[in-house]
Amino acid sequence: MSEQASTVGPVRIVGTGLLGASVGMGLRALGVDVVLEDPSRTAVLLARDVGAGRLPADEDAPARLVVVAAPPDVTADVVRRQLDEHPSAVVTDVAGVKSSVLEALERSGTDLDRYVGSHPMAGSERSGPTAARTDLFVGRPWVVVSSERSGAEATRTVQNLAIDLGATPVRLDARAHDEAVALVSHVPQIASSLVAARLRDAEPAALELAGQGLRDVTRVAASDPAMWTSILAANSRPVAEVLRALRGDLDTLLDALDRVDAGDDDGASAGTWGAVAGTIAAGNEGVGRIPGKHGGVRRAYDVVVVLVPDAPGELARLLADVGDAGINLEELSIEHAPQQAVGLASLSVLRGLRERLESALSERGWRLAG
Amino acid sequence: MSEQASTVGPVRIVGTGLLGASVGMGLRALGVDVVLEDPSRTAVLLARDVGAGRLPADEDAPARLVVVAAPPDVTADVVRRQLDEHPSAVVTDVAGVKSSVLEALERSGTDLDRYVGSHPMAGSERSGPTAARTDLFVGRPWVVVSSERSGAEATRTVQNLAIDLGATPVRLDARAHDEAVALVSHVPQIASSLVAARLRDAEPAALELAGQGLRDVTRVAASDPAMWTSILAANSRPVAEVLRALRGDLDTLLDALDRVDAGDDDGASAGTWGAVAGTIAAGNEGVGRIPGKHGGVRRAYDVVVVLVPDAPGELARLLADVGDAGINLEELSIEHAPQQAVGLASLSVLRGLRERLESALSERGWRLAG
Repeated sequence: MSEQASTVGPVRIVGTGLLGASVGMGLRALGVDVVLEDPSRTAVLLARDVGAGRLPADEDAPARLVVVAAPPDVTADVVRRQLDEHPSAVVTDVAGVKSSVLEALERSGTDLDRYVGSHPMAGSERSGPTAARTDLFVGRPWVVVSSERSGAEATRTVQNLAIDLGATPVRLDARAHDEAVALVSHVPQIASSLVAARLRDAEPAALELAGQGLRDVTRVAASDPAMWTSILAANSRPVAEVLRALRGDLDTLLDALDRVDAGDDDGASAGTWGAVAGTIAAGNEGVGRIPGKHGGVRRAYDVVVVLVPDAPGELARLLADVGDAGINLEELSIEHAPQQAVGLASLSVLRGLRERLESALSERGWRLAG
Repeated sequence: MSEQASTVGPVRIVGTGLLGASVGMGLRALGVDVVLEDPSRTAVLLARDVGAGRLPADEDAPARLVVVAAPPDVTADVVRRQLDEHPSAVVTDVAGVKSSVLEALERSGTDLDRYVGSHPMAGSERSGPTAARTDLFVGRPWVVVSSERSGAEATRTVQNLAIDLGATPVRLDARAHDEAVALVSHVPQIASSLVAARLRDAEPAALELAGQGLRDVTRVAASDPAMWTSILAANSRPVAEVLRALRGDLDTLLDALDRVDAGDDDGASAGTWGAVAGTIAAGNEGVGRIPGKHGGVRRAYDVVVVLVPDAPGELARLLADVGDAGINLEELSIEHAPQQAVGLASLSVLRGLRERLESALSERGWRLAG
């Protein structure tokens, strides 16, 4: 985060939930004047109390920037009203879908040269102003969606806001944004929920066999239904398009499994078994395209797994020993063993460092696992 | 792991890949005599060299236990042959599907009182004897599948093997096992692969927006196609049943999204939007049933997110500070920020410890994030 803000206040934040209050706190930390507004008096007072900004006053200077942080389905209306009420302000919103907001604004006939949409790719499993953080956006992409009608000055103002809050601005048009989030966020959320939903009627004994794979796939299934209904409804077409393609792949696989089950194919025909292998191979190819650490190409790491007693300080001692060996961890994950007071720490290091790490840890008395 | 083995040698391991060689190494560490066999001479020599056991000799005492660690599609044949060749040995296998193996054995007319199937719930993204580990099974569930025909002594022998290797034996019948792994392992694998497959044609800009949610959902999509084809083909019916139910839920959601997109429903009818919300809510319910740490009820943790400079020793210093504060970490995850030399460490602690942890870390100069 830069020491000096490019953003000039007063900044008006309309909607003081997690995102709005976090924008306010981040700007306040840079000394920018922030004025708060929310239909809920409780939300606005809470946001003030956590340091997100101040209440409006009669003698306020005109707002220079308005940040609308409202639910997607009301965002266009709120943006339109703010453009009217603050005739010298740039107005942005932080809704997670962009085309439906922009289309509603265009239909309304409002002059949009002072409007630039945006979407900071940040969030939390918690919500509301009390979950807000000064650094919520640090290191995250912040999509900036200027339309054909947006003025250059408005675009610059919103990019500066992202940079002031420590985020990386990414320019996309509304449609590209919505297709991108359908693919990298909305459909993964749905798949996670669909898999988790199948566990509702599972035998307890089956759930006892759950491993890290299931936990990873279903982690985001714990997300808020009301928030996601609003997001998915506002991005229904791009999401449905990806889901339909996914269902096509699923049907191909199901058909192959049914043929295997019926004994119609004993593996002699490449078609049936090829369809099963093809499903997994296509996934290999897709997951390999996800950028790795620091936005670079995904590296293959060496992984060393260590048994860690489940007591305060043990994990710290392990990582101190890794640091003493002069080795930088690329990734770290912890899995707790069921019914045992021991954790398995997977330490990922750059290729070629595995043996050095293993001997350093063994020398220091750590037990290595598989 | 107990200091003294209940398992009595010689133990014969047939198939010296990751699982077979790890069984051998674990038993050798307890002083049990282990004899290795594999159709691949290279695999068996490698397994010997990593300490998984020795080559057979003419003067060998009769095997007391045979562990078949072959691909699922050949397991039944290998088990049958081992039962014939080692008339005083208990024979088990470690294939990831159990009904198809048992049915093939029953069809063959072999006497099965010395056979008990099993499935250690352990693995690695790596394969082969060089990836084997003495502690691969420590803390993992190990499913023991005795059929109606299995003798009590055979069942006890296989349970003791699991316990000797540090695993927790779980008794299930073959069908319950196969339905359980379809639900908690095979279908999550497929869902992960299907979501990842959609990324093959994604714009690079879309992939830049990838967050932790996508990474979690698609992690297992990197798994080996050949291995999974063999597993899915051998468990086609239970997998297809779960997939069909999942597709039913998917169709309901798609139908609702299409209605929203067509403007047939502006939210006034509970049916359409309820179907969207219901998808996410059902996922909430399912994921809540996955047992948490130590096999107990999943706890809701307090989470503190800390910015960690990407340098050797920094994470260790953080965790040392957590330990100094006398606080035990329940979960830890690290996310690296794209294009920034900083990581976000999410520290989960028992409810009520958040404020204490936050002030302890702030005092020590750590920057807290959202």
